[in-house]
Amino acid sequence: MKFVCFGEIMGRINPVGFKRIVQTNNFEITYAGGEANVAVSLANFGKNAAFITKMPENIIAQAALRSLIAHKVNVDDVVFGGERLGLYFVEKGASQRPSTVIYDRKHSSISESAREDFDWNKVFEDCCWFHFTGITPALGKNVAEICLDACKTAKEKGIKVSCDLNYRSKLWSAKDAGETMSKLMEYVDVLIANEEDSEKVFGISAPDSNIKSGELSKEGYKYVAKALNDRFRIPVVAITLRKSLSASDNLWSGMLYKDNEFYFSKEYNIHIVDRVGGGDSFAGGLIYAISENYNNQDIVEFATAASCLKHSIEGDFNEVSAAEVLKLMNGDGSGRVQR
Amino acid sequence: MKFVCFGEIMGRINPVGFKRIVQTNNFEITYAGGEANVAVSLANFGKNAAFITKMPENIIAQAALRSLIAHKVNVDDVVFGGERLGLYFVEKGASQRPSTVIYDRKHSSISESAREDFDWNKVFEDCCWFHFTGITPALGKNVAEICLDACKTAKEKGIKVSCDLNYRSKLWSAKDAGETMSKLMEYVDVLIANEEDSEKVFGISAPDSNIKSGELSKEGYKYVAKALNDRFRIPVVAITLRKSLSASDNLWSGMLYKDNEFYFSKEYNIHIVDRVGGGDSFAGGLIYAISENYNNQDIVEFATAASCLKHSIEGDFNEVSAAEVLKLMNGDGSGRVQR
Amino acid sequence: MKFVCFGEIMGRINPVGFKRIVQTNNFEITYAGGEANVAVSLANFGKNAAFITKMPENIIAQAALRSLIAHKVNVDDVVFGGERLGLYFVEKGASQRPSTVIYDRKHSSISESAREDFDWNKVFEDCCWFHFTGITPALGKNVAEICLDACKTAKEKGIKVSCDLNYRSKLWSAKDAGETMSKLMEYVDVLIANEEDSEKVFGISAPDSNIKSGELSKEGYKYVAKALNDRFRIPVVAITLRKSLSASDNLWSGMLYKDNEFYFSKEYNIHIVDRVGGGDSFAGGLIYAISENYNNQDIVEFATAASCLKHSIEGDFNEVSAAEVLKLMNGDGSGRVQR
Amino acid sequence: MKFVCFGEIMGRINPVGFKRIVQTNNFEITYAGGEANVAVSLANFGKNAAFITKMPENIIAQAALRSLIAHKVNVDDVVFGGERLGLYFVEKGASQRPSTVIYDRKHSSISESAREDFDWNKVFEDCCWFHFTGITPALGKNVAEICLDACKTAKEKGIKVSCDLNYRSKLWSAKDAGETMSKLMEYVDVLIANEEDSEKVFGISAPDSNIKSGELSKEGYKYVAKALNDRFRIPVVAITLRKSLSASDNLWSGMLYKDNEFYFSKEYNIHIVDRVGGGDSFAGGLIYAISENYNNQDIVEFATAASCLKHSIEGDFNEVSAAEVLKLMNGDGSGRVQR
Amino acid sequence: MKFVCFGEIMGRINPVGFKRIVQTNNFEITYAGGEANVAVSLANFGKNAAFITKMPENIIAQAALRSLIAHKVNVDDVVFGGERLGLYFVEKGASQRPSTVIYDRKHSSISESAREDFDWNKVFEDCCWFHFTGITPALGKNVAEICLDACKTAKEKGIKVSCDLNYRSKLWSAKDAGETMSKLMEYVDVLIANEEDSEKVFGISAPDSNIKSGELSKEGYKYVAKALNDRFRIPVVAITLRKSLSASDNLWSGMLYKDNEFYFSKEYNIHIVDRVGGGDSFAGGLIYAISENYNNQDIVEFATAASCLKHSIEGDFNEVSAAEVLKLMNGDGSGRVQR
Amino acid sequence: MKFVCFGEIMGRINPVGFKRIVQTNNFEITYAGGEANVAVSLANFGKNAAFITKMPENIIAQAALRSLIAHKVNVDDVVFGGERLGLYFVEKGASQRPSTVIYDRKHSSISESAREDFDWNKVFEDCCWFHFTGITPALGKNVAEICLDACKTAKEKGIKVSCDLNYRSKLWSAKDAGETMSKLMEYVDVLIANEEDSEKVFGISAPDSNIKSGELSKEGYKYVAKALNDRFRIPVVAITLRKSLSASDNLWSGMLYKDNEFYFSKEYNIHIVDRVGGGDSFAGGLIYAISENYNNQDIVEFATAASCLKHSIEGDFNEVSAAEVLKLMNGDGSGRVQR
Repeated sequence: MKFVCFGEIMGRINPVGFKRIVQTNNFEITYAGGEANVAVSLANFGKNAAFITKMPENIIAQAALRSLIAHKVNVDDVVFGGERLGLYFVEKGASQRPSTVIYDRKHSSISESAREDFDWNKVFEDCCWFHFTGITPALGKNVAEICLDACKTAKEKGIKVSCDLNYRSKLWSAKDAGETMSKLMEYVDVLIANEEDSEKVFGISAPDSNIKSGELSKEGYKYVAKALNDRFRIPVVAITLRKSLSASDNLWSGMLYKDNEFYFSKEYNIHIVDRVGGGDSFAGGLIYAISENYNNQDIVEFATAASCLKHSIEGDFNEVSAAEVLKLMNGDGSGRVQR
Repeated sequence: MKFVCFGEIMGRINPVGFKRIVQTNNFEITYAGGEANVAVSLANFGKNAAFITKMPENIIAQAALRSLIAHKVNVDDVVFGGERLGLYFVEKGASQRPSTVIYDRKHSSISESAREDFDWNKVFEDCCWFHFTGITPALGKNVAEICLDACKTAKEKGIKVSCDLNYRSKLWSAKDAGETMSKLMEYVDVLIANEEDSEKVFGISAPDSNIKSGELSKEGYKYVAKALNDRFRIPVVAITLRKSLSASDNLWSGMLYKDNEFYFSKEYNIHIVDRVGGGDSFAGGLIYAISENYNNQDIVEFATAASCLKHSIEGDFNEVSAAEVLKLMNGDGSGRVQR
Repeated sequence: MKFVCFGEIMGRINPVGFKRIVQTNNFEITYAGGEANVAVSLANFGKNAAFITKMPENIIAQAALRSLIAHKVNVDDVVFGGERLGLYFVEKGASQRPSTVIYDRKHSSISESAREDFDWNKVFEDCCWFHFTGITPALGKNVAEICLDACKTAKEKGIKVSCDLNYRSKLWSAKDAGETMSKLMEYVDVLIANEEDSEKVFGISAPDSNIKSGELSKEGYKYVAKALNDRFRIPVVAITLRKSLSASDNLWSGMLYKDNEFYFSKEYNIHIVDRVGGGDSFAGGLIYAISENYNNQDIVEFATAASCLKHSIEGDFNEVSAAEVLKLMNGDGSGRVQR
Repeated sequence: MKFVCFGEIMGRINPVGFKRIVQTNNFEITYAGGEANVAVSLANFGKNAAFITKMPENIIAQAALRSLIAHKVNVDDVVFGGERLGLYFVEKGASQRPSTVIYDRKHSSISESAREDFDWNKVFEDCCWFHFTGITPALGKNVAEICLDACKTAKEKGIKVSCDLNYRSKLWSAKDAGETMSKLMEYVDVLIANEEDSEKVFGISAPDSNIKSGELSKEGYKYVAKALNDRFRIPVVAITLRKSLSASDNLWSGMLYKDNEFYFSKEYNIHIVDRVGGGDSFAGGLIYAISENYNNQDIVEFATAASCLKHSIEGDFNEVSAAEVLKLMNGDGSGRVQR
Repeated sequence: MKFVCFGEIMGRINPVGFKRIVQTNNFEITYAGGEANVAVSLANFGKNAAFITKMPENIIAQAALRSLIAHKVNVDDVVFGGERLGLYFVEKGASQRPSTVIYDRKHSSISESAREDFDWNKVFEDCCWFHFTGITPALGKNVAEICLDACKTAKEKGIKVSCDLNYRSKLWSAKDAGETMSKLMEYVDVLIANEEDSEKVFGISAPDSNIKSGELSKEGYKYVAKALNDRFRIPVVAITLRKSLSASDNLWSGMLYKDNEFYFSKEYNIHIVDRVGGGDSFAGGLIYAISENYNNQDIVEFATAASCLKHSIEGDFNEVSAAEVLKLMNGDGSGRVQR
Repeated sequence: MKFVCFGEIMGRINPVGFKRIVQTNNFEITYAGGEANVAVSLANFGKNAAFITKMPENIIAQAALRSLIAHKVNVDDVVFGGERLGLYFVEKGASQRPSTVIYDRKHSSISESAREDFDWNKVFEDCCWFHFTGITPALGKNVAEICLDACKTAKEKGIKVSCDLNYRSKLWSAKDAGETMSKLMEYVDVLIANEEDSEKVFGISAPDSNIKSGELSKEGYKYVAKALNDRFRIPVVAITLRKSLSASDNLWSGMLYKDNEFYFSKEYNIHIVDRVGGGDSFAGGLIYAISENYNNQDIVEFATAASCLKHSIEGDFNEVSAAEVLKLMNGDGSGRVQR
């Protein structure tokens, strides 16, 4: 049974090491995107993951495609055509200097795709799960409609739908996000959010939290999850809790609201190698753990441990196995050499 | 007195060495463009070169700008705004495998610029030369009009105008190119072309040449230059003569039609390091040599020697001094170590 | 219909650039092997290629496996187990310094595999072609027997069998090679050889050729192909003709003996980027062209053009498409930039 | 109005990453120097910064010059001639292993320059600020005299003079430094020092501090600043407060003594990317903030935040904008990704 | 007087930076091994260190040999022959992701060496110390016997014998290790161990420690050292105390049991650059300090400081001098830049 | 018996690949010098080579020293002290762009060494050969005197003396070179020169050769060798014959005048990887072949083949074995892969 992820895959261009773009001619290009990252996580955990997008027929898009194929992600239903592959530039931050991400994704094939491009009935054959993020509908009204088509078809077929809220202020306004995402929420079974996104998109926030200061109370998280559940009748809500000490060091944990209970994972003190894709690796871990019928506490532990490990991995893709996640989750975070 | 070049500067993204895009994650990014390359050539030869374009306000455009500033190119009249910096991907070819260039330049700031963006009277203050290529008007009707504005203003101010024909079939049709370029030719004092472009854009070709076979007769070149002069009353026509033995080895020379005479340069047997930007370096050398009042034979020798050296330089920019060009032109092509 | 290739995939370890192993700590690791290279060629040409081997369950073998998956090579029937992944070290030569290859492949999983490891009836389901090289039976008597099993099963199922003679003196003696390969020849429909291997393995050589001098007569090649056909009743014999001017420059062409006629390809003057895998890319092109029912002249032209391009590609895998091969084969070897 | 910085620019040669010189052949070369770093900081903040030095006419000096030009530093008054460009080698330390710096700057053009080389009246046209460090007079008696010339001319013209004490024991003795610097102090309006330098050069130290232990009291700093003010009548004294936990982690803050008051900045807990140039970036920030008429608390906050960011940047140059410094200074040190 | 180290030197292959093997083609190869690392430490401290092994005659082994020669390690008694050089692959971990080490050392020349290969009487001429680790006898019964030969000959000649217990579960079972190592202990004068190895090999452990949690009591260490001394009459026992906070951060100290007293070193809070070889650098420091007749406290301080520095060095070899170790040991761990 | 080489070893700094210094921050540093290169050649051929120089006590000099030790060059008599290690910058040329070499060697320890630094009686114990080049006396009058001391001592002890003329116009005038070298010639048994140096230093040239055009007649070479022999009574004169087609392609051969006969080697058509050190590798090969008592034809063939191979090797050091040279010399220059 397939896990279908729908969204954009982009070329990720970053200077080698901690250089800024203006300082160097040496770059790495890898390929990534919110939903592609989830597909790769699921494939790395052994699931039959499929990725759906539209991409142009050129050599840079071929490289993006190959990176998915290499991870055994099913790309049989990728649509070809359109103008360009979206790109984004990353400067890796350190200490008090934040990482910066500059998108160059306008006019990408997926952002200019049409509803006719995708045959969701075919895509969802032999499928058990559909995942998308708030980035995909933000690419344009056409893509938002395609998302809605997908959600509706998924619902009809009894496929579980998960969504990572992932608000991007450079792609759309909070108002537009709120309207569009509210409509999509109707179809969502599992929502992943963080407090900041929840406030910006739906105006839901705990009374007194202060995200930037890194001071986040557990009660605030509970409030947000409950409020999301109340408003949209979403049975499962997961929230990632990042306390950003600096660009180099973060505290990281997760919360799951499920079966009307709250489950908090253990908290990891992370020394960051590459932080981009951290949220997506949480989503990937969460979907895996739910689909494996883990108990509720283990679901949030697995998702958090998976995304903890992602922070030690270069690139967006979470290059770890389920066994490695379980090993961390079950206690060995000491980082001793494995011989 | 300024030499003003107008066009697009892009990020040039290429795999390190001879790798194909799909094979590697290690890339180099430099910044280049037909007219920017000419501006850098002129600056490297000691001229006061200025580059005019429109570029977005983001960190990748800042890096492009810095690459110009580093070469002492005057960027005071660059206009900021718009969506994105154009990009292009290069795979360096070798032996029988050709280099490939994939453009990702649509929707760039310059391609979507408006006539109001540029104040040519101000740009052309204290200016003696204006250079553009056939790529710039190919970016869009708006940009073609801006080119026409620039040409007219230059003419009014008695500024010399040079144009490198540079036909790009991916940007516009031969028919569109012919119509637009014909109008612009009226203002051009120095035209640089090769036989292939001349045929495609203006339908001017020698009766029996065969470009791909590398068999090009001197008579054919004379015919083309004369025909261009006949049709457009352009006093100076220069033609580059590339005999491509393979992606690694080329024969390279130039011809100048000036004062109703034909001047052929010596021919260089080039082992190629990086061929992209070779034509632009010829234009840069030509403009420099004309502006220095070299005699006609020396003009074409300088332009050819300059571009010969470019083929040994990584990146589009021709990182050589006038002294180095003169040294080659005056006979020392033996490649002996300079200690 | 699958094209099944059976053999060893190894880690290929080479210094970056032209450094010798003793000079540097900077290495590239890619993954390759005679038959794996053919499988990748076929997959790159759009065929359903499968690779069969035995490899250990560790992270370096996983990387080898991923490199096949990335090229869409079917690895469903790869067997896991055994001790180690074979490795080989390459020093890229230049000018008068030859490339050196040091094998570290003893005790690899495939070399110690057992006949029971492979279920050829299952492997050959829905298969039209079986390919192996003389390297595989050279890995050990057990592997030679497995080869024989595979050949017999292929024959029973009416599957075409191709073999690249590929004699490796470090793996076995000429005598052992002759005995073993002679037995296997009975099942072979398409044999690829060069004059040197043919002489060493089967004692078949033209009267007066001198391989090292690079002076090879067409008549000698005809003699060898005919002799191979005479002795083993192999309907199709292809011979690669390498005239090694230096480690940097080779003349390269091919000959096909088929339907009792000799077909010589055009000869390419190659400036070498990476020569390892050149013969395999010829085999890959040959199998593709035969399976596409090209006419005999085109078969040898395609195989030769494909392998010509390989010499311009870093690594063993021939990263070119059928369209690129056809473009070269149909005349454009000028190496002009493709924009 | 120009900000003129006078001193040496050198080639900075360091192994890639954390390698020691003896371990590797892979190096990076950038260009830097105490005053050049300040000039680049000021230029990056948008000021019209000029750099004055003497450098030889060769290709390595040209590269140093280009690095300044690329940052829009005015180099119109650089003097050419002399023997060599100074160099220094850096091994980046980590954890308990300190960074090491080996100077190879003797006989550099600037160190052997003559008073006649510099026309300070011309240099100081349209100038509002002059900056130098204690390194420059340490290069030789001739250079100390040139410094004095510059200071006197600046004073005559009403130009503000700043000096970073920067004692280098390898360049001169504490006694020589004390004598020479004392004479120069007469002209200094803004002095930057740290406790260690103040003690070594002027014998001024707080009773009981222990620099190496990292235990530094605020009272000690106040004492030193006041004592410097007392002795030399310098109206503004700034002191950097580095608590070195290890080569990887430092606490970093600053103190400003101005208008007879003490202002302490917030303290940053820095995970170090590259520490060399940290003090210079403080000076650059300080000069900028004073020239922008920030209030006294903001002056020290800006200088400290600027230099905090520098520690996250590879190379000596502080590649950050004023906007980025303000963002950190105004509270967002959480290092969250900027999208 | 020579310090002889006997064991295996391998090629160490690791991805550049923090990449996993499957993510990259860019690798570093250096050469290392438990006893080779000790030999290099001793040579770097100025001792006459010799390394004894058997290695094949090929270019990769030549590179390993050169790396020893470069460090002035005496390799005059290295034996040549056999099949292959052992290799191992390292993925450098970070934060909660542990480093992984995959050995590919089976069938190496040393592991298949015979007792006749080594003439210990000749090796031990003019020798004062013999060092081996528990890895060497684990390579095979033959090598264990060779170790025993060496130990006996050393004892006869009055040479001090040191052993680092270094249990490797992938090489042999705890039971085999216990039997073999017990026999060898008879000859050992200085034993280096950690609590984990001591428990696995000899079943000696403190009642209630928990290694993975990083909670290790001093009393437990004392217990273990005393128990080892009791059982084997080893006069000197040193134990390394690693508290692994994560793969990036460790607390590190050492304990020495000598002259019936316990000596604990200071504890270092290490931010890790490369952790592999950390234990060997402790052994190297210990042997050096004992042979220099340091007092007991200084012995353990030197060994711990040496190995603390190793964690900041890329590769297994501890590229520091005795002077650098003494500097750290005598108090300056602040990591301030050395100019 | 030692082969003693006396001269300077420098840090060689070059951009990676074909970049110019101004284009990149990525450099390689290796260590080289005319006589050090010969010492390494001899050591690589299995001889007991010693290198004598004076170098400073710092980490960059340590790296130079280690590079010699790694090649088994005896450095026991290297003198430590003085200011700095000489450096030189190389830009690798290609095609018509020549390589450039910029020296930064003034004030190096060896150039400022004193006669008292070297105890030639001790150095020449157990020595059979002394080699120096014209670069060493060019470093200063002091060094010229040291050279004379060495030559005299060598003569007294019956040690063979070889000298490579190697004129460097940037180090001294032709007149100074002539005077100094003439005095030293008295002690020289084997002189290596090329026509250009011979003309510049001694005014000896064939009537009508034209070096830069690459047209060199055999008769001219004979004339020069004979004239050198006539003037200085040098029994053996060897001349290298480089026909520089371009910076990428050279024809290369050698001539030996010995026993009153002329011996010309075969000529190699070289595609150049790195040309610097080519002459030194000829000298190394010559000395080796003479000392091995090769016949006269084989002497010049070995020297030429050795230096032919050097052109395919990165860096100054000729990283080839005598076996590899013999293989090329005895006919296999086809560059076929060695498996």
